[in-house]
Amino acid sequence: MSTQNVIATYVIETSLPLMAAAEVLAGEQSTGTFVRVERESDDLRARFAAQVESVQEIPLTGAGPLPGTVGDPALRRRAILRLRFPLDNFGPSLPNLLAAVAGNLFELKELAAIRLIDIDLPSSFAARYAGPAFGVDGTRRLMSRPEGVMIGTIVKPSIGLPPADLAELTGQLAEAGIDFIKDDELQANGPSAPLAERVKAVMPVLERHADRTGVKPMYAFNITDDIGRLEANHDLVVAAGGTSVMACVNLVGLAGIEYLRTFSAVPIHAHRAMLGAISRSQQVGIAYRAWQKLARLSGADHLHTNGISNKFYESDAEVLDSIAAVREPLLGLTPTLPVLSSGQWAGLAHATYDAVGTTDLLVLAGGGIHGHPDGATGGVASMREAWASAERGESAAAAFEASGALRRAAERFGPVRV
Amino acid sequence: MSTQNVIATYVIETSLPLMAAAEVLAGEQSTGTFVRVERESDDLRARFAAQVESVQEIPLTGAGPLPGTVGDPALRRRAILRLRFPLDNFGPSLPNLLAAVAGNLFELKELAAIRLIDIDLPSSFAARYAGPAFGVDGTRRLMSRPEGVMIGTIVKPSIGLPPADLAELTGQLAEAGIDFIKDDELQANGPSAPLAERVKAVMPVLERHADRTGVKPMYAFNITDDIGRLEANHDLVVAAGGTSVMACVNLVGLAGIEYLRTFSAVPIHAHRAMLGAISRSQQVGIAYRAWQKLARLSGADHLHTNGISNKFYESDAEVLDSIAAVREPLLGLTPTLPVLSSGQWAGLAHATYDAVGTTDLLVLAGGGIHGHPDGATGGVASMREAWASAERGESAAAAFEASGALRRAAERFGPVRV
Repeated sequence: MSTQNVIATYVIETSLPLMAAAEVLAGEQSTGTFVRVERESDDLRARFAAQVESVQEIPLTGAGPLPGTVGDPALRRRAILRLRFPLDNFGPSLPNLLAAVAGNLFELKELAAIRLIDIDLPSSFAARYAGPAFGVDGTRRLMSRPEGVMIGTIVKPSIGLPPADLAELTGQLAEAGIDFIKDDELQANGPSAPLAERVKAVMPVLERHADRTGVKPMYAFNITDDIGRLEANHDLVVAAGGTSVMACVNLVGLAGIEYLRTFSAVPIHAHRAMLGAISRSQQVGIAYRAWQKLARLSGADHLHTNGISNKFYESDAEVLDSIAAVREPLLGLTPTLPVLSSGQWAGLAHATYDAVGTTDLLVLAGGGIHGHPDGATGGVASMREAWASAERGESAAAAFEASGALRRAAERFGPVRV
Repeated sequence: MSTQNVIATYVIETSLPLMAAAEVLAGEQSTGTFVRVERESDDLRARFAAQVESVQEIPLTGAGPLPGTVGDPALRRRAILRLRFPLDNFGPSLPNLLAAVAGNLFELKELAAIRLIDIDLPSSFAARYAGPAFGVDGTRRLMSRPEGVMIGTIVKPSIGLPPADLAELTGQLAEAGIDFIKDDELQANGPSAPLAERVKAVMPVLERHADRTGVKPMYAFNITDDIGRLEANHDLVVAAGGTSVMACVNLVGLAGIEYLRTFSAVPIHAHRAMLGAISRSQQVGIAYRAWQKLARLSGADHLHTNGISNKFYESDAEVLDSIAAVREPLLGLTPTLPVLSSGQWAGLAHATYDAVGTTDLLVLAGGGIHGHPDGATGGVASMREAWASAERGESAAAAFEASGALRRAAERFGPVRV
């Protein structure tokens, strides 16, 4: 028996007194039913009950209550609640941790809002879960990009591209100096372009490029599929010389990523498709900051954070907090590489670098590379020049004045963020 | 190449013209970026693009828009949208289906609400996924309950009960005539009561009971854990004579349930912990009706639906719709058994039976059995009498007047729902 604890942090809203609501939640998620039952001794409660660590009232936001909420709306208050769960209740098992900190509680009608925003885990989780096997450094090594930002792109069109066209596109991107290419999350193993055919078309192109230049761009093949197919999909990629596999965390499950980690010989590129279903509402679900810890423990070498000025709903502040969260140390694990994507182009480099202060990032540009007026070569050059300039401490204005590739990027995608 | 399609039904809200929003969504989830890219031919679009099947405007509900939504609030409208996805885009793979129908779309800022409410799947999914191996009939056979409602309970206290006490409780419940017992979802494989110790304590009690009576109550041991541990956990249960394993769908992932299905020799009791995170908001996420189809295809023999008059947020109408959804035929699969729980007791039997018209249900009562004034024996007897009376078409009033076990149940848990 250990005395280790997990601390889960929530935002809640309730019409109950805040401490009473906190205790309902702690009880439901540990020893409790709503009524005491036989055999539920004080000793048992003392050892197993979740404890209220702190309750800090914060202002209401004006958001409506969750469906089915009970209680007088006039009494509703909002708080940050921290609960302490004895590790012995579930042990260092991610699926069983979730039952406690993120299980039935989302359905409690006493709560007008209930969102898990952070989790502090004891070291025993890192003893059981190895986390990323490659992370930032391992990825740099495999793609021969020892410093500077890592520049990648997504295959477009998302689906429907015949393997021969995909091979041609890959060759062009490799020539253009790309570090990383990934399948779209919509492209997996459908009849129109099976994984085996994509691997067979793409890898010889990358191998020939590597033979000639000494650099093999990393291609993350989307191997997302049933659990029983992940290993064969992975083996297909690795046998052909592939250096990364992509899997959608929420589609194979965090448990699926952890399973993949047990045999993957290459970095796991972890896509966040479907995350909005659990994280977009401010009233219910699991925030990115909590979710990313689980994904990293499960073994995500690369993890999508979104980028600033993206086409999705998140503000720049939210994106920057996600990037910062992924870069924070976690139980001594190998650092996971944040993946910035959506609407990215050279004109966001200075603003992003100013905010994050690192080039240990994988920045994916789709249109921002494919759509550059000088083609992929100009697209990659513009991205690399902009990030190098930002890292040297130059202004965006100076960089875009000095470079033709940047000026032409700005003509197509501008204005430049400063 | 097939011409099969998947139809996904959504509730959306947007300030764009409804058809324009529908097309943004269809594009993003199939061929699209927001701008056409090279190689995206008309032919490719024709074969792979998702199509708008129908858009039906419905009234706004007054709920606030999702965070990060763009557009003039005055123009906001709500609609039921049906999109048709070519199966060739992803093939009959549940994880890859989700990338299309439930992936990045939840993050689109053009949508003030985006909720997946139903999915119509072609038969090729049933060719790939076998669904439940036991379902209603297989469960009845294993628990020797050929007709009438199946009555079960949850071990309480949820956690902390030493294995010896658990064995004693199990014996009492078996004597009381219970059909089914399950671990709490909080009880998995923690250091305080490891799965192996629970199995070792419980199964001999049930085996002795079976030797004596010919009936072995079904005990669903919670085997939720990392993917790589599921098979060993399962084998432990089955080797000891156990007849069910419980797994939390959202904690091992739908993919984890499907994996478990590939080797499980006993019914899979599928718990819905964490479902509220993706389904409670009416503005975002995945509704029960859509989710349960995926769980059934993945192999859930038993699936939690909640019960009427429950302690959670769902209304009776929502619960009854969930039960009806699980009972609807799905691609010829073996029927999954709906599991009613939370706040259940004998006084809900008539109202439930009147609404659902079947006893092909597993009704779980925690307090409603353990807390009966005559103990578990009275609790089980009261549940069985009430359901038998309802099935005979009697009124609740007549039943409760005629039976001591029912009268005493009503004294503790009343009033009776009629």
